[in-house]
Amino acid sequence: MNTALLRELAAVLPSEALITDADVLEAHRRDQAEWAPSGQPLVLVRATCTDDVRAVLRVASARKVPVVPRGAGSGLSGGANATDGCIVLSLMRMNRVLEVDPRGLLAVVQPGVLNAEVKAAAAEKGLWYAPDPASWEFSSLGGNLATNAGGLCCVKYGVTGDAVLGLEVVLADGSVVRTGGRTVKNVAGYDLTRLFVGSEGTLGVITEATLKLRPKPPRATTLVATFPTLSGAGLAVTDIMARTRPSLLELMDRATCRAVEAYKPLGLDVEAAAFLLARSDAGGDQGVAEIEAMARCCEAAGATFVTHSEDEAEGELLLTARRLAFPALERQGATLLDDVGVPLSRIPELLAAVEGIAARREVLVGTFGHAGDGNMHPTVVFDRKDPAALARARAAFDDILEAALALGGTITGEHGVGVLKQPFLGRQLGEEAMRVHRRLKGAMDPLGILNPGKVC
Amino acid sequence: MNTALLRELAAVLPSEALITDADVLEAHRRDQAEWAPSGQPLVLVRATCTDDVRAVLRVASARKVPVVPRGAGSGLSGGANATDGCIVLSLMRMNRVLEVDPRGLLAVVQPGVLNAEVKAAAAEKGLWYAPDPASWEFSSLGGNLATNAGGLCCVKYGVTGDAVLGLEVVLADGSVVRTGGRTVKNVAGYDLTRLFVGSEGTLGVITEATLKLRPKPPRATTLVATFPTLSGAGLAVTDIMARTRPSLLELMDRATCRAVEAYKPLGLDVEAAAFLLARSDAGGDQGVAEIEAMARCCEAAGATFVTHSEDEAEGELLLTARRLAFPALERQGATLLDDVGVPLSRIPELLAAVEGIAARREVLVGTFGHAGDGNMHPTVVFDRKDPAALARARAAFDDILEAALALGGTITGEHGVGVLKQPFLGRQLGEEAMRVHRRLKGAMDPLGILNPGKVC
Ligand SMILES: Cc1cc2nc3c(=O)[nH]c(=O)nc-3n(C[C@H](O)[C@H](O)[C@H](O)COP(=O)(O)OP(=O)(O)OC[C@H]3O[C@@H](n4cnc5c(N)ncnc54)[C@H](O)[C@@H]3O)c2cc1C
Ligand SMILES: Cc1cc2nc3c(=O)[nH]c(=O)nc-3n(C[C@H](O)[C@H](O)[C@H](O)COP(=O)(O)OP(=O)(O)OC[C@H]3O[C@@H](n4cnc5c(N)ncnc54)[C@H](O)[C@@H]3O)c2cc1C
Repeated sequence: MNTALLRELAAVLPSEALITDADVLEAHRRDQAEWAPSGQPLVLVRATCTDDVRAVLRVASARKVPVVPRGAGSGLSGGANATDGCIVLSLMRMNRVLEVDPRGLLAVVQPGVLNAEVKAAAAEKGLWYAPDPASWEFSSLGGNLATNAGGLCCVKYGVTGDAVLGLEVVLADGSVVRTGGRTVKNVAGYDLTRLFVGSEGTLGVITEATLKLRPKPPRATTLVATFPTLSGAGLAVTDIMARTRPSLLELMDRATCRAVEAYKPLGLDVEAAAFLLARSDAGGDQGVAEIEAMARCCEAAGATFVTHSEDEAEGELLLTARRLAFPALERQGATLLDDVGVPLSRIPELLAAVEGIAARREVLVGTFGHAGDGNMHPTVVFDRKDPAALARARAAFDDILEAALALGGTITGEHGVGVLKQPFLGRQLGEEAMRVHRRLKGAMDPLGILNPGKVC
Repeated sequence: MNTALLRELAAVLPSEALITDADVLEAHRRDQAEWAPSGQPLVLVRATCTDDVRAVLRVASARKVPVVPRGAGSGLSGGANATDGCIVLSLMRMNRVLEVDPRGLLAVVQPGVLNAEVKAAAAEKGLWYAPDPASWEFSSLGGNLATNAGGLCCVKYGVTGDAVLGLEVVLADGSVVRTGGRTVKNVAGYDLTRLFVGSEGTLGVITEATLKLRPKPPRATTLVATFPTLSGAGLAVTDIMARTRPSLLELMDRATCRAVEAYKPLGLDVEAAAFLLARSDAGGDQGVAEIEAMARCCEAAGATFVTHSEDEAEGELLLTARRLAFPALERQGATLLDDVGVPLSRIPELLAAVEGIAARREVLVGTFGHAGDGNMHPTVVFDRKDPAALARARAAFDDILEAALALGGTITGEHGVGVLKQPFLGRQLGEEAMRVHRRLKGAMDPLGILNPGKVC
């Protein structure tokens, strides 16, 4: 069966597209979710065009072999992890920016283009591609789309899905469908674009995307504030969101600040319960007014220290602490990075719940994230060599998901379900919604060959 | 069969919910798309709660009777038009704002609430519900969601779908599914919310929605400009969009301006080829800078007259012309209102094509619309009593759809497919995408009872 499959693939693909080298396969077995399970792929295909993708899916359909689409492998939920005997289908060789149309305010790209490359191509024409996952320098647009990636600026400018006008998608049977188009508004038929966005490779393989560009916003002013209590910081977040339109609103708790200071001393107040970072890019005196309004929200919520800078370089420096959050926590041990979301009003409760879990499970948890969207990354840090610590860390990770659900939240705000959170999805969605998921999956991929075991 | 059906409905619904009065049925047979076909309903059900909706769908499923969900009936594509022997299911009695949560920045509403009522409930807490179809004072939120309604401010703030966090939906078999939730970001599973939004009652009946609120933006400054050529106005639109973030960007052509002047003299230049209206709500000197940048775009594109006002009342006055566009055209005769979208770069070509069609088909076409989104409403005006004129008007209407498609555009930017454009959908989407539509419809509504004949 295996050799027959390889022979069939070889017959329809360029020879250099087909890789069975064990080391290369090993390097394509999993993404960055260290603790998510992964299987042993049979072969890696490096597609160079839509026809390659079609050919793979036709063969896979005929043989009922699983296909795992793969971008840069930077995912954090095991979404790109191999299943045993699967074809790993890498889209990274389809890496061209096909078009930047400054008058149409759009770009057409292949899925293997990096987010940073789209930003650069847009900037060349004086425009901006907004979505900015922290992985923007090394994650692919296909991966960003398939996970509906978020980032820092989405509190004002939306997530990846908000920046897509249309897609080309190869379906499980090898047929090609185009969704959306080149218009900003379009209600002709069902929103297939949004159905594929965030579907983590389980409904189709994205082979092209038409993305929305916009003018670059005015230069941002950056504010930082520290709080003696988590609830004060949470209060400031909801007040800021109700009164202003921050272009960034990030929070770090004490454990995260301490990890950052230990990694790279920046003079953070390691006694403060929380550190808040906000930006306004409203520009001019409106920007000043907005930053002042944010500062007032912080002070009213009990901030002990508030400052801001209109200088871009200084603003970037202030952001350093946030950028170092995850690397700094990683220095402290093995990590289990979570990605929960709660309604804006419940951020303080989430933060308190996480503190309680850390104490109860006797693990270190550093929490940071996109507070303005209620999307936080509590990160469990533990000793890799201690199996009991891993067990406690896993328990804490699960507790955090439960806490988010109990607060009316979500088990994943931006990283996706993948294999890591697949067991929790039903808990969040309920039986009826799961049934709808299975019906949709069945309608789009009746043989179940597309990234099986992921999402639902 | 009919009496049996009525008996079964009567057994599961409050008696006042069931209406068979001929006049009332007649008033619920169609929406505002005067020329779209409609059938004869068997009965009108006025649901008062989700359980009523479930009961109707269970009976309808058992008997394979079509159900046509209906909001305020303000639709412009025949989406709420009855099919013969159907149950018209009105959601207008489910008209409560269930919750406004100012700290969570959300509102929970029933589908029969008017858009204006949501805006008012939000405003009471100092917040803003953004989506603003011109029908905001009389269209229902359920209808807005089911059509993914647009409006004037969506050029900056997005369409209805961009303001939804979650839904409660009753499926064809009477089961209830909840989608999304109360969090801003959420990638747990497929985007069911977006699948139901814009599905025009063909996939499920929306019985509750959780909507996103935001702070009210700063006061807007309004700019008007007139252009001697359509292409100049089109150029100005794309320049403005590439350089600024207008909170409104509307265009009216000469025929529309003339109709408005004939209806209510406002001193519009009826010799100008096009009239542009733009707004900035950036606020402060950034707002001034933005309006100045817009003015420069207009001048560079050959505008003969450009002015602006920071006064709110004066700004509203300047908007009067745009608000009167459709009523003024309706005064000139019967109308066929179109709703095409093109890529931003192709607006001048669309406007030129429409002029050509008007000349060739010997009809009057007034074009106005949401230029900043490339979404225009060419409106064919003709003599209601002249069958030949109706035939020419219909031909012109179809030509306009063809022209939009030829320019890489869409047959509907915001009004929906309904019955009016159903015959054109396949032309736009292609066979593969239509096949996907049918698969999804089949998965969600295997008996085909939900609003049959609409969309696909
Ligand atoms: C340091 C770091 C920071 C990060 N920061 C963020 C962040 O701020 N926000 C955020 O949202 N994520 C973040 N991530 C997670 C990750 O970068 C994103 O999920 C990203 O979108 C994945 O892109 P990728 O190309 O690496 O995809 P992969 O990891 O290769 O794949 C991700 C998923 O998409 C599917 N897929 C990939 N390409 C296609 C395609 N063409 N068609 C169909 N399915 C496809 C895969 O099957 C898989 O399910 C971060 C990761 C790291 C390591
Ligand atoms: C003067 C005027 C101006 C307009 N301006 C705009 C505009 O600027 N932008 C715009 O987008 N539209 C506009 N419209 C069109 C119309 O108002 C919108 O489409 C509106 O969203 C329809 O809402 P409704 O409550 O009237 O829905 P209806 O007309 O009753 O129904 C519309 C569709 O939604 C379905 N539906 C209704 N309620 C539900 C529900 N609860 N669950 C499932 N399906 C449901 C119906 O089956 C139908 O397919 C305008 C109409 C008029 C008359």
